[in-house]
Amino acid sequence: MADEKRFDIVFEGHGRMTGKMRNDISVDFVTMGEHFELATDEGPFHGGDGTAPPPLALFTAALTGCFMTQVRAFSKRLRIPIRNVDVRARLHWQGVQEGSGPYVSEPVGFSLDIELDTDASEEDQTRLVDAARKGCFIEASLAQGVIVGHRLKAGDGWRDV
Amino acid sequence: MADEKRFDIVFEGHGRMTGKMRNDISVDFVTMGEHFELATDEGPFHGGDGTAPPPLALFTAALTGCFMTQVRAFSKRLRIPIRNVDVRARLHWQGVQEGSGPYVSEPVGFSLDIELDTDASEEDQTRLVDAARKGCFIEASLAQGVIVGHRLKAGDGWRDV
Repeated sequence: MADEKRFDIVFEGHGRMTGKMRNDISVDFVTMGEHFELATDEGPFHGGDGTAPPPLALFTAALTGCFMTQVRAFSKRLRIPIRNVDVRARLHWQGVQEGSGPYVSEPVGFSLDIELDTDASEEDQTRLVDAARKGCFIEASLAQGVIVGHRLKAGDGWRDV
Repeated sequence: MADEKRFDIVFEGHGRMTGKMRNDISVDFVTMGEHFELATDEGPFHGGDGTAPPPLALFTAALTGCFMTQVRAFSKRLRIPIRNVDVRARLHWQGVQEGSGPYVSEPVGFSLDIELDTDASEEDQTRLVDAARKGCFIEASLAQGVIVGHRLKAGDGWRDV
């Protein structure tokens, strides 16, 4: 396409062990030059001290916030005005353990219930949700599927695993 | 399998608009009865006030923390002791825009570089990383792919979109 534009979004995280189960994670929004300090922990049940939310709480907020941000941004671009958006997310996983080995994780289903305060038609509301879904970087990653690459430090180099 | 055990992990989020681009998101770890208050915002470039990290910063921390937590938990279960784990994550997306329409998101590649401080063999280190990868709920969701369901409030009911 002659008029196709592409832009890159790159985030880098650096995670360090800082408690029984706590991880402190410095996050750089590389392509915008922004920096954030975040952390995860687990509750006492999982051997942590509960000093920060667990990773899946951050994930739930990330997915919810990502979708809502796109609804708001694309509401302006598509000229489908909204007064308010309220989203209820439900994320369901299962862990599957055979014998005493480490468990394996499986997603069961993720859903977003969206309430728009708007005078827009049902058709326009659907168009807005559809654009937000396709524009949300997290939903796009989940929909397409991504195999995360892993490398282990080995001596002075890195080994793919 | 006679000795297969399954357990459920359910998170619910409730996102509300609370600023120009800020969303406040209450997150319940339903199956554990834990509650967390989180927020996302955007920087001034994207019309926000920068009062909280953007959704993708939470996502980067979530993925990094999820993987690290599983490394630490499975280190004990697999009896592969580690003194430290340090992870550098890189997440790369592209936005693709045709004309002046809303852009569409695509994941380009996600990677984790892992440094273990351990006396374990390369084989055991690989085994630990492999278990953590399969046990990490976020990596499993990305690897398998998940289509998020969407419903729009319509009158007193909900409409699938």
